[in-house]
Amino acid sequence: MEMDLNAQEKKAGFFQRLQDFPSKLKDDVTKRVKNVQKFAKDDPRRIIHSMKVGVALTLVSLLYYVRPLYISFGVTGMWAILTVVVVFEFTVGGTLSKGLNRGFATLIAGALGVGAVHLARFFGHQGEPIVLGILVFSLGAAATFSRFFPRIKQRYDYGALIFILTFSFVAISGYRTDEILIMAYQRLSTILIGGTICILVSIFICPVWAGEDLHKMIANNINKLAKYLEGFEGEYFQPEKISKETSSCVREYKSILTSKSTEDSLANLARWEPGHGRFRLRHPWKKYLKIAGLVRQCAVHLEILNGYVLSNDKAPQEFESKIQEPITTMSREVGEALKAIAKSIKTMSNDSACVNAHIDNSKKAIKNLKIALKSSYPETYKDLLEIIPGVTMASILIEVVNCVEKIYEAVEEFSGLAHFKETLDSKLSAEIGQHQLLHRGCVKPVLDGDNEKEDNSSCHVLITVHDEGYLPTATAKNVLGAEKTRVDIV
Amino acid sequence: MEMDLNAQEKKAGFFQRLQDFPSKLKDDVTKRVKNVQKFAKDDPRRIIHSMKVGVALTLVSLLYYVRPLYISFGVTGMWAILTVVVVFEFTVGGTLSKGLNRGFATLIAGALGVGAVHLARFFGHQGEPIVLGILVFSLGAAATFSRFFPRIKQRYDYGALIFILTFSFVAISGYRTDEILIMAYQRLSTILIGGTICILVSIFICPVWAGEDLHKMIANNINKLAKYLEGFEGEYFQPEKISKETSSCVREYKSILTSKSTEDSLANLARWEPGHGRFRLRHPWKKYLKIAGLVRQCAVHLEILNGYVLSNDKAPQEFESKIQEPITTMSREVGEALKAIAKSIKTMSNDSACVNAHIDNSKKAIKNLKIALKSSYPETYKDLLEIIPGVTMASILIEVVNCVEKIYEAVEEFSGLAHFKETLDSKLSAEIGQHQLLHRGCVKPVLDGDNEKEDNSSCHVLITVHDEGYLPTATAKNVLGAEKTRVDIV
Repeated sequence: MEMDLNAQEKKAGFFQRLQDFPSKLKDDVTKRVKNVQKFAKDDPRRIIHSMKVGVALTLVSLLYYVRPLYISFGVTGMWAILTVVVVFEFTVGGTLSKGLNRGFATLIAGALGVGAVHLARFFGHQGEPIVLGILVFSLGAAATFSRFFPRIKQRYDYGALIFILTFSFVAISGYRTDEILIMAYQRLSTILIGGTICILVSIFICPVWAGEDLHKMIANNINKLAKYLEGFEGEYFQPEKISKETSSCVREYKSILTSKSTEDSLANLARWEPGHGRFRLRHPWKKYLKIAGLVRQCAVHLEILNGYVLSNDKAPQEFESKIQEPITTMSREVGEALKAIAKSIKTMSNDSACVNAHIDNSKKAIKNLKIALKSSYPETYKDLLEIIPGVTMASILIEVVNCVEKIYEAVEEFSGLAHFKETLDSKLSAEIGQHQLLHRGCVKPVLDGDNEKEDNSSCHVLITVHDEGYLPTATAKNVLGAEKTRVDIV
Repeated sequence: MEMDLNAQEKKAGFFQRLQDFPSKLKDDVTKRVKNVQKFAKDDPRRIIHSMKVGVALTLVSLLYYVRPLYISFGVTGMWAILTVVVVFEFTVGGTLSKGLNRGFATLIAGALGVGAVHLARFFGHQGEPIVLGILVFSLGAAATFSRFFPRIKQRYDYGALIFILTFSFVAISGYRTDEILIMAYQRLSTILIGGTICILVSIFICPVWAGEDLHKMIANNINKLAKYLEGFEGEYFQPEKISKETSSCVREYKSILTSKSTEDSLANLARWEPGHGRFRLRHPWKKYLKIAGLVRQCAVHLEILNGYVLSNDKAPQEFESKIQEPITTMSREVGEALKAIAKSIKTMSNDSACVNAHIDNSKKAIKNLKIALKSSYPETYKDLLEIIPGVTMASILIEVVNCVEKIYEAVEEFSGLAHFKETLDSKLSAEIGQHQLLHRGCVKPVLDGDNEKEDNSSCHVLITVHDEGYLPTATAKNVLGAEKTRVDIV
């Protein structure tokens, strides 16, 4: 009886599921479609790239559809199709690197293959396949081995592959055909057609430059560090006030820890690209990797810092409140400095005055922090163990400031090589540098046409407070206009 | 006159260089040859792989050389050559993934292509190329777009590429030939032959398993952490005694910071591999990535620690000497624990007793360190600032111990899933666990057949010192034999 009921229940359940199936399917499909739409929206270049591949394929298929072309190329037109599919990459650098590798490797291997076939013919009909076999084996093995060398792997991996392919192909089929020269010529010319179509479509229809991607990526990574440091005070001192969403946004720096391979491959592809936009032909792409390494070093420090943010084992409230002010200033100022560095990379203009001001401020905060530490101890706390987490956190944050200084130095060096524009700000910085600064900050004019949200740190008005015989005076310099106004705030 | 002399000098210099050229060339060539030899020696599998590619190429060229085979396949034999060159990868997983992707993609795209050609013929001679063009454009673009999705990119990227290739190829050439079915069949069968040759050669001649590489890589990475920690005391407290060579060997852990992409791709390839050696078909490859993540987290801590090792800004001598002993014990014991963990992964056997013993010891050292810190301050030093570097270093080292514990937990979980052998040691550990341990260490028998240098940490005799009413007694357990001897050392 019970089993009967059970079976009935199961049957009912099955029918229920069958009834639900269409609506479930519909939900599932709409969910997937939405996912795809979101994915395409995240980077619309993906859609454009897919279209571009379609265009290149359509162009190359004309070799078959247009009668005069078909008569001259015949079925070898398929090599052109193959070339388009294999060579067309997302970035211009990728397409150029693959196209040029494919072209030159085919040329060299084709010539060698024809030579090999002629050589083998000296050994008679019996010896020919043996000699060809030995040549294919040894050149194939040697070229495969060469692909393990990092230098070759990095730049000519695809070329080595195509070398093996073409050489084997010409040498082996040379045994069965006498029209080997015609074959080699047809293969080469169709590959040239395919490669040229790819390169032209890639460069002239909405090009995606690996170099530009690398440039933006480095600037964005520096911004990610800045975001974390700006949110640091809240995260550390008022964790209860932080929503989960902000918290995850703030921890974007984590992606930097594992971004090395992407950066390396972008820099590698960028070297194949011709000059474009703001980047000249011999743009110092390798220097980006140096900056990226320092940025990663900084991210490593943030990772440790983050451990102390998330930990429940914090120093006593009294101690924390003593160090809160200098820590807050330090993290905010160093975050601002990073933002200014990122902006200077993005706009390719030197803005050393602003960065220097923020770094100076954070250094001053370090001094204040040290004073706070010294004064709070051992008078206030007898137990060193209790304050260890706070001390360690502060110590790592000081290291972060050092890291940021190193990043700035690398960017300064790079800016010279990459011909950054000099902004008016930095021209003024020399003048400003003559006085010893007490405070310096950047103020953004309210009526600014700049719409970018991230550009809060753009310096148009510099306010500097100088130490002049204990009487601080403030100078507001409208850098955009040449007008200078002296404002005494005492 | 002067110019004449100058020209003469230049001429003489030129002849000198010309004379030197052969010897210079010889030097250069011998240097390069030596480099290549060293490179091949570093990983002889590279040579073997190159040979294997040669063998596969020779086998596939039989399609041309052997008359009956040539008669049945004709020039389509070239697809087999192409397949061998493109599909043959260094690891079995790589070859299988590419071979299966190529096979299935060709099958599906070929069928769709034939369908497309038949569909297009309904539209008459004028409409046919237009319909075919639209189909090639849209399917090509869609498949290209699908390659951006991380899931597809990871496992089926090559399949999508071959799909576009085959579909375009069949659809476009279908316009000019009526023998499209024969063409599709020939292409498929030659690809199958090429793919099968690759897979067989890859699996049966000295196979390189991605899974095994991943397994070894994780164990080696853990060993790199151990090496740094074991050398840490010398590096930090007696930097003048350390030679440059040891120093660079000790910093091998740095490679872990950027090894994520290699690990990911190995884990991805390993999933294509059949069961082999100690690894079953459904070996938990993904779990390696979890362990690898924790190992990297530990390496991040070492990177910060390393900053304090290299820094000149150290705490005063007196303070350092107070913390030297617990720091030394901590780093040594946690290094030993890591070595034991690495060994347990390498041998795929559980050795929890040994690891636990070392972790316990390092935790005890943490307690001693805390006592040392508490006692030294504020009695001995009034200035907190001076000892900050030492305190931070110690604090990070404590975090390293936590990291190692997490690694151990992950390895423990993994060992269950991966069916690690239980060693006798760990069976005893339950028994040992009943008493509170004071000290526990591992002693290696002198007459041991084990030749591996890294295996110092293998536990055969466990010496445990128990706390029994303030009278410490030692138990030496010969774990290999079942015999138990009780030795009181008081």
